[in-house]
Amino acid sequence: FPSKLPEVGTTIFTVMSKMALDFNAINLSQGFPDFEISAELQNLVTDYMGKGHNQYAPMAGVPDLLNSISRKLKQTHNIEVDEKNEITITAGATEALYATIAAIVKPGDEVLVIEPAYDAYVPAVRLNGGKPVLIPMDIPDFTINWDRVAHHITGRTKLIIINTPHNPTGTILEEDDLSALAGIVAKHGIYVLSDEVYEHIIFDGEVHQSVLKHPGLRERSIAVYSFGKTFHATGWKIGYSVAPPSITREIRKVHQFLTFSVNTPIQYALATFLEDKKNYEGQDRFFQQKRDYFLEQMQTSRFVPVTSKGTYFQLFSYKNYGNRPDREMAEWLTQEIGVASIPISVFYQDKTDNHYLRFCFGKNDQTLKKGAEILCRI
Amino acid sequence: FPSKLPEVGTTIFTVMSKMALDFNAINLSQGFPDFEISAELQNLVTDYMGKGHNQYAPMAGVPDLLNSISRKLKQTHNIEVDEKNEITITAGATEALYATIAAIVKPGDEVLVIEPAYDAYVPAVRLNGGKPVLIPMDIPDFTINWDRVAHHITGRTKLIIINTPHNPTGTILEEDDLSALAGIVAKHGIYVLSDEVYEHIIFDGEVHQSVLKHPGLRERSIAVYSFGKTFHATGWKIGYSVAPPSITREIRKVHQFLTFSVNTPIQYALATFLEDKKNYEGQDRFFQQKRDYFLEQMQTSRFVPVTSKGTYFQLFSYKNYGNRPDREMAEWLTQEIGVASIPISVFYQDKTDNHYLRFCFGKNDQTLKKGAEILCRI
Ligand SMILES: CSCCC(=O)C(=O)O
Ligand SMILES: CSCCC(=O)C(=O)O
Repeated sequence: FPSKLPEVGTTIFTVMSKMALDFNAINLSQGFPDFEISAELQNLVTDYMGKGHNQYAPMAGVPDLLNSISRKLKQTHNIEVDEKNEITITAGATEALYATIAAIVKPGDEVLVIEPAYDAYVPAVRLNGGKPVLIPMDIPDFTINWDRVAHHITGRTKLIIINTPHNPTGTILEEDDLSALAGIVAKHGIYVLSDEVYEHIIFDGEVHQSVLKHPGLRERSIAVYSFGKTFHATGWKIGYSVAPPSITREIRKVHQFLTFSVNTPIQYALATFLEDKKNYEGQDRFFQQKRDYFLEQMQTSRFVPVTSKGTYFQLFSYKNYGNRPDREMAEWLTQEIGVASIPISVFYQDKTDNHYLRFCFGKNDQTLKKGAEILCRI
Repeated sequence: FPSKLPEVGTTIFTVMSKMALDFNAINLSQGFPDFEISAELQNLVTDYMGKGHNQYAPMAGVPDLLNSISRKLKQTHNIEVDEKNEITITAGATEALYATIAAIVKPGDEVLVIEPAYDAYVPAVRLNGGKPVLIPMDIPDFTINWDRVAHHITGRTKLIIINTPHNPTGTILEEDDLSALAGIVAKHGIYVLSDEVYEHIIFDGEVHQSVLKHPGLRERSIAVYSFGKTFHATGWKIGYSVAPPSITREIRKVHQFLTFSVNTPIQYALATFLEDKKNYEGQDRFFQQKRDYFLEQMQTSRFVPVTSKGTYFQLFSYKNYGNRPDREMAEWLTQEIGVASIPISVFYQDKTDNHYLRFCFGKNDQTLKKGAEILCRI
């Protein structure tokens, strides 16, 4: 049978991580930490397995975890949610994104996607018969021009997907951005899917602007979060969505048939772990130090940074090294120089090439130092 | 926005398990064991977490696990697979089913579903724009009439979903069934999605008939398996699909955007655990004893069994107790008598009511004895 996603090849994350391995390069490509997760959190998982919490969790999530999340949202972002009817635990933020899109998007619906865009959005829209409408950010600062966004709205526009802090660029949305978006939502009645998986990785005293906090957006928005990102356990695959009850009802209908429920002992462990806010506070400082350290080490290189405001990614323009395409540059750096990164062109459907690479600084200082040293030597 | 699954309410499994809890009834409804999983397997998960296997697994699965599965398929069912290109690890069999349907079914395609059918098949088909074509099994033996199946094939038929051992009826497909199906596949070029999650729970010396073993089916079939069922850990949410490379390629494209990858430490733990075949052999004897024990305890009741040949479910006709609808009967039994079961009518889209209930015997003997005692007293 013909492919429903003919344009999808092996994901760039797999490609670059494998290339890093094959060429023994320092892997600053795929976004995952190379340091350890909390021993306490691991022990909690072991405890709950031992206590026999190994059968199906409730479809929407373990009540204790829903409760812990609701307290955390209140405490960190001053957001009130109805934990029974607004939260759904998912197999990573990826499932939350997919379930939301599958619940909302019908064949022929248009979905606004801001580029560069994380690579899961467009295929999820396409698989559900939606039509992605691609809107580029303004360079060199990677900001969103909301007039341009408004200009792309038609009678068929159903949803816009936003992402703050933003992967791959490390930019964040400010209050003004959300207000502009709220104006569009009010006028056109579209929905907002907000990927906020890096909510706790935000720098320089900036405050995470969640769609859940914004009165003009709350009623028509779905926010998506990830424990993997927050607790350095990307391989555990657990995240959640938060949305008004009427939307959550539809997300859960899809979730029920995508995965039904999520790992039970890990849900209990996270419920307990979240009770102590020390366990998630301070992530921003931790990662800001890493960003600062990496930028400092890169200072003598000729890569030009777009200083990251959030996420564990740092964008660099490499125009001082000529203008070969992103992808070629990333491959060359991995194979010949010994540092793997992610080319930004892959985050554009048409492979727009602005000569940027993304480096992950969610790594040990030693790894960052070694990577930067090599890059400074080019 | 209007629901894409208006007919989907709260799943019967949640409804009945909650009702069992609320009315303090013995819960023989939802299919999950009330005994413990292997301590060795739990320890392996703890070990691999401690060894730092907590970041993204490769998208298709951890190579060690793919290898262990391939050895297990050879050893238990004498099936050869190309582990690199034919296996995909998924967030439970549920995700494997959904990813397969999403990969294959296009809007307007017809999908043959044999009823009674596990409740995840039809919504997955509908969400992907497919048209479920429902074909009832013959009662009282719940067998498939393959001429009737052939009769429902049209130019738009893309896929048939089968399930052996079969939930909820406890029937199994014999070699003759697969040969009849192979004839249909050869003639009409449709694909086969085979839900084989109860492969290791099969009784009375019967041999599990996998589509993967049948030369006439192998090339056009996808088989789906579950570690949760096999290792009594339904809450861990890990399963896999096996399909020819050209189909696996498309399943992986969907899997990549549904969940991306599955819990890493559990994958490593299962890879090691599967190395010792003692760990999955003997499941059939274990569950056969449970079935026999439960049937024996039920002998003085007026429920009439359709002796289970596989799965941990036992069907009973309750016609000796009058002919109220399945669902009413199940509710009455839970609320007034104190034993929760699953009504079979929910597994028919039109709620066909043949007066059967399903009881899960994957429970402690004490639980089964107590449940049967109460049921015998009615
Ligand atoms: C799912 S692999 C990609 C990890 C990630 O979020 C990134 O590197 O951008
Ligand atoms: C996913 S809850 C349903 C469990 C099960 O397989 C059943 O009871 O049939």
